Amino acid sequence: MTSDRMMISVNEGVLPLIETLTNRADALRVKVTRGAAGETIIDAGAAVPGSFEAGRILTEICLGGLGNVRLDAGSYLDRWPFTLTVTTSQPVIACLGSQYAGWQMTYGEGDSAYFSMGSGPGRALAGKEDIFRDIGYADRSDNAVFVLETDTAPPEGLVRQIADACDVAPERLTFAIAPTTSLAGSIQIVGRVVEVALHKAHELKFDLSRIVEGIGTAPLAPPHPDFITAMGRTNDAVIYGGRIVLYVTGPAEDAKALAEKLPSATAADYGKPFAEIFKAYDGDFYKIDPMLFSPAEVQIVAIDSGETFRGGSIDPKLIDASFD
Amino acid sequence: MTSDRMMISVNEGVLPLIETLTNRADALRVKVTRGAAGETIIDAGAAVPGSFEAGRILTEICLGGLGNVRLDAGSYLDRWPFTLTVTTSQPVIACLGSQYAGWQMTYGEGDSAYFSMGSGPGRALAGKEDIFRDIGYADRSDNAVFVLETDTAPPEGLVRQIADACDVAPERLTFAIAPTTSLAGSIQIVGRVVEVALHKAHELKFDLSRIVEGIGTAPLAPPHPDFITAMGRTNDAVIYGGRIVLYVTGPAEDAKALAEKLPSATAADYGKPFAEIFKAYDGDFYKIDPMLFSPAEVQIVAIDSGETFRGGSIDPKLIDASFD
Amino acid sequence: MTSDRMMISVNEGVLPLIETLTNRADALRVKVTRGAAGETIIDAGAAVPGSFEAGRILTEICLGGLGNVRLDAGSYLDRWPFTLTVTTSQPVIACLGSQYAGWQMTYGEGDSAYFSMGSGPGRALAGKEDIFRDIGYADRSDNAVFVLETDTAPPEGLVRQIADACDVAPERLTFAIAPTTSLAGSIQIVGRVVEVALHKAHELKFDLSRIVEGIGTAPLAPPHPDFITAMGRTNDAVIYGGRIVLYVTGPAEDAKALAEKLPSATAADYGKPFAEIFKAYDGDFYKIDPMLFSPAEVQIVAIDSGETFRGGSIDPKLIDASFD
Repeated sequence: MTSDRMMISVNEGVLPLIETLTNRADALRVKVTRGAAGETIIDAGAAVPGSFEAGRILTEICLGGLGNVRLDAGSYLDRWPFTLTVTTSQPVIACLGSQYAGWQMTYGEGDSAYFSMGSGPGRALAGKEDIFRDIGYADRSDNAVFVLETDTAPPEGLVRQIADACDVAPERLTFAIAPTTSLAGSIQIVGRVVEVALHKAHELKFDLSRIVEGIGTAPLAPPHPDFITAMGRTNDAVIYGGRIVLYVTGPAEDAKALAEKLPSATAADYGKPFAEIFKAYDGDFYKIDPMLFSPAEVQIVAIDSGETFRGGSIDPKLIDASFD
Repeated sequence: MTSDRMMISVNEGVLPLIETLTNRADALRVKVTRGAAGETIIDAGAAVPGSFEAGRILTEICLGGLGNVRLDAGSYLDRWPFTLTVTTSQPVIACLGSQYAGWQMTYGEGDSAYFSMGSGPGRALAGKEDIFRDIGYADRSDNAVFVLETDTAPPEGLVRQIADACDVAPERLTFAIAPTTSLAGSIQIVGRVVEVALHKAHELKFDLSRIVEGIGTAPLAPPHPDFITAMGRTNDAVIYGGRIVLYVTGPAEDAKALAEKLPSATAADYGKPFAEIFKAYDGDFYKIDPMLFSPAEVQIVAIDSGETFRGGSIDPKLIDASFD
Repeated sequence: MTSDRMMISVNEGVLPLIETLTNRADALRVKVTRGAAGETIIDAGAAVPGSFEAGRILTEICLGGLGNVRLDAGSYLDRWPFTLTVTTSQPVIACLGSQYAGWQMTYGEGDSAYFSMGSGPGRALAGKEDIFRDIGYADRSDNAVFVLETDTAPPEGLVRQIADACDVAPERLTFAIAPTTSLAGSIQIVGRVVEVALHKAHELKFDLSRIVEGIGTAPLAPPHPDFITAMGRTNDAVIYGGRIVLYVTGPAEDAKALAEKLPSATAADYGKPFAEIFKAYDGDFYKIDPMLFSPAEVQIVAIDSGETFRGGSIDPKLIDASFD
């Protein structure tokens, strides 16, 4: 399996998507510039308005070109008629090897310190995070692409460090940035509906090599100019409104256990809008029960036994409480 | 903003769609010919049957290549299981700068007089309509593309006038035609679900530069061989069955006011199938309350305050009365 | 019509899809090899796991490149939130000229005998089946592509016979294989939701030249390792959960009659999960009432009169009985 996976390059796979962002920059309201180290910066919502379509493409970049992302006229939430749907036949590489925001990009100190969580294919070139050992995936490519949920591009020194870590020339580095409050950012975060399930499965020590397909959908969260509210809504879209199906190999009892443990409702903090929970912990992200970051409604299909196991359910009232 | 917008060419943007219609003409049941002035005529439903897929592509051409159009298995209307979904991150240019049928193409007099409302990207080259001043958009391109809801291609003299007005050679002009009663026509009209909302917002003097995203869906109207019935059904799909969300910047109270005024239900003539209303006015389109042309159900998301405002609701009984 | 149709090549039309399978083989978990006669074999689920995305592409290959296949977040079945949606503006050629598994590929005798039902565009090159006379379609191409619902590629002798029958070099033959129990197989069979309707319409002697558009959707059937159960579920997805709309020309009474006769509920064997029916007949496929193979819920739109006729309805309980 591992040797096969080496043939999948998430960084090469997203180049056509980068090209689309670049060629259609004006239509997508994004701005493409070169940074001090020669890196490409695609602003999709910081100094420019950006767009949902840019966010959709950004989400497909996050998935390393291994998933489809679409705005859907699904209607399982009467008051929120449109949803974002994500499908991937490579959920582990797409979601954990690329989409997961696992790289803590920090630089400098004090007031001029820079911090952003790095997401996207570039992570699989550096391969520094433990998760790459667990999933057995590494990429090789001359290009490295990152998606940052921020309004500030990384400083030159950090860019050079990242280029070194990825073993690419700075000129071959691309950073696409979109803050949580932006149109593209709101799409990009709701688009993590499958990823959070994969990540929680990993936390639950489920054997990731057994997860072979992932499909998920969640309502479009209305953007909000306040960072905490925006973060709250996009997380609530998944936590209280997200629906996923994972297809897994291996024993049915493992699939059953996963279905029981995977939904957001198993978390101690479940039951209030995310922004309230965040504030109750004085904005300390790390005090929130990590088990909360998961879709509301989960199906695990054990393909070796043909059984479907279910857990959780969507909570339209909490979605209303969050989105209204 | 204006200078940025100048970089978006709706006429250049649709060339790949024109190429698809041409290359797949037989599969799409369309016919591509050259007219007397050298213009390209794509018949998508007059002398040939055309198809839904041709209509879907025609709708994307109407949107100037700035939107996605899709047949969806949405199911918010139990008896009409499939809908047409339109998304655009450039709603103003796509819908008003291109899709709106704002160019009265008239030629000759008496029995040989030609009349058709011109829609599509070509309008933005001539830029004669007042609306282009209001939206601050003009296109530059050597190609001009129009979509006409008619069964007759324009006469040579009119083609030459249009070429002059667009400042393109007649050989670089393309007219795609599909009558209201055709398969492609039925898609193309239902595909105006976002456009009519934009146009009504304009009539209501809402500042268009504030509308940044548009998503809409409406049920597929069953085609009908009678012109008035076909026109009635396709309009009813939007007026009684259409759902849209617009994302706008600016004050929340403006968004709230728009949500209240925008739905079709605010029109004096609301409540009967469109064909009945049309007949009641003896077929005089201009006597119909223009406020009727709008989706049934509207959400306006004020992204600067994060509030969502709602107005109107779909009317399944009227859809049944129209479609059955 | 016939001469126009000759311009549509289902075998040429699928080449970009074959290219996608080949170029993205690792990501799609398929394996592309050369067989003894030089033919290309794309294993999408026999010795390799395959994937839903491979199945989706396989289904578009089955349709001869004349249809769109998509995983949808439709939700008309509460417990099975995702569906497969198929749209085609060439339903007759796509479904009967290509997708229908009408070619009995047999070779050898006794224990080493090979048998598979051949589906896909290649059928339209050989044109041996009666159905090609009825639909008036034949393809011309130097390439022949088949999709086989099996876990075994055809033996060399059979490959050479097929190449002869198609009048292509064996090196220009492609076989994509996926067994019923595989991920790709499960998509590929549910993806027959429109095709079975077309085939039953043919059995009912409905004039096929009158069927101009087809849209259908059916729930994703959970894969099962047991062949009979897997076959049962994928068929039940269509028989008890499938919804289609066909658009037809000609007299309304014919459309009305078709809507009444077309749904699966008209079959004597209707009402039990397919696997049970199959077992009740001791696994003899040919004893099953062929009228069972059809969608649960049917709409026929008579476009010459504008009327919509309905028949059948989905049966969520039977879907539960089959899928759970």
